[in-house]
Amino acid sequence: MVAKKDLKFIKSLHQKKNRARHGLFLAEGVKLVGELLGAGFGVHSLYSTDPGPPGIQTTPISPGELKKVSTLVQPNKVLGVFEVPEAAPPRFNGWLLALDGVRDPGNLGTIIRLCDWFGVRDLLCSPDTVDCYNPKTLMATMGSIARVRVHYLPLEEVLPACGLPVYGASMEGNPLPGASLPAEGVLVLGSESHGVSAPVRALLRATLAIPTWGDAGAESLNVGTAAGIFLYEIRRGTPGPTIQK
Amino acid sequence: MVAKKDLKFIKSLHQKKNRARHGLFLAEGVKLVGELLGAGFGVHSLYSTDPGPPGIQTTPISPGELKKVSTLVQPNKVLGVFEVPEAAPPRFNGWLLALDGVRDPGNLGTIIRLCDWFGVRDLLCSPDTVDCYNPKTLMATMGSIARVRVHYLPLEEVLPACGLPVYGASMEGNPLPGASLPAEGVLVLGSESHGVSAPVRALLRATLAIPTWGDAGAESLNVGTAAGIFLYEIRRGTPGPTIQK
Repeated sequence: MVAKKDLKFIKSLHQKKNRARHGLFLAEGVKLVGELLGAGFGVHSLYSTDPGPPGIQTTPISPGELKKVSTLVQPNKVLGVFEVPEAAPPRFNGWLLALDGVRDPGNLGTIIRLCDWFGVRDLLCSPDTVDCYNPKTLMATMGSIARVRVHYLPLEEVLPACGLPVYGASMEGNPLPGASLPAEGVLVLGSESHGVSAPVRALLRATLAIPTWGDAGAESLNVGTAAGIFLYEIRRGTPGPTIQK
Repeated sequence: MVAKKDLKFIKSLHQKKNRARHGLFLAEGVKLVGELLGAGFGVHSLYSTDPGPPGIQTTPISPGELKKVSTLVQPNKVLGVFEVPEAAPPRFNGWLLALDGVRDPGNLGTIIRLCDWFGVRDLLCSPDTVDCYNPKTLMATMGSIARVRVHYLPLEEVLPACGLPVYGASMEGNPLPGASLPAEGVLVLGSESHGVSAPVRALLRATLAIPTWGDAGAESLNVGTAAGIFLYEIRRGTPGPTIQK
């Protein structure tokens, strides 16, 4: 049995203000917890309904207790409280992605997963972008949060000094298929409703758009879907694609 | 005030079996309802908390009543009950997409929105793919359901007779960037967990994969994200891209 105060503490981490206060976040499920452990994330506490694997100390938790503190409809055996990693400066080489005011937790998670897939190791987020340790975001990363560094920084301060050309996604931009992109750069994506903010727009070398084909009536693409297409185009002609077998 | 039996009827349409029984579905929000009306979908009934626009007859509904029958946390003024369009045969020219066992309603909605964007007018779905009139799917289409025809058909029967080459998405396929794709075809996407089913796999001319770059640890892409990248590559070198201004 887990003490009431511990259950209460775990549950408090559903909220961003408590995660920020304690420098801790909550991860659920065998896969996500396993990936975080494997990547060397600092552990505060681990709970499991089953006996943990040898060498890993877990506190027993009943399925009923787990359900009480879980953010999931169907809680998944393991729950870990992890330390938010210390902020390190972004590595400005190769391509980076930057998000400007993306509020949907699922979209952020999808984009972190895409960064992992396409070998983008650093993701910049404006301070008003949703928290990457939001439980819905973490689930949507499918473990990729363990491999992509997410940095919350004021984009309009960081980007001018980063030494890389900065591109932006915009409905009115140049067609992505014809763009000749350099080997390194930063691509900024805004929110679906507001696009890239004015101070960041002023820093862009060029804007790029995913064209429509046919007599499309769709007005926009989901920002997660758009990020996938942009990253694919950025990598498309470059060496090093790998088919996972 | 809306009669109790009408509220009960609207609410029953949250469930697939009732939608199938009545040949009706529920659409919420000014945008989606507007797009369906504009596309000529048959109307069963329309409810609105505000007076409707001139020429469109709506039944007044109170915000409290709307909340009771809505599938949304924050209901949005307008609710319509529409007729499921009569099944018409798929148009096998150009490129079509086919989904084999995609269960997530949001992913299906995203894919319908992508079909609209990339000018794919017909989407084939295996009978075990989630219902396109699922409320979560409809919301995720952002109105594109009004412009893309969705067909529920046994893929292993329809595809061999369709006259187009059939390709499949597979983690072990040929790299998508190098594939030389014909002007017409069908691309089949399976579920993230199971991929394309064996009977459909047997029909494929070739399988294609989105490669990873770098030392990616991600095991897969979300099927909606993958669909966007495949459709982009299919259209990429073809004439007719349009930038929406």
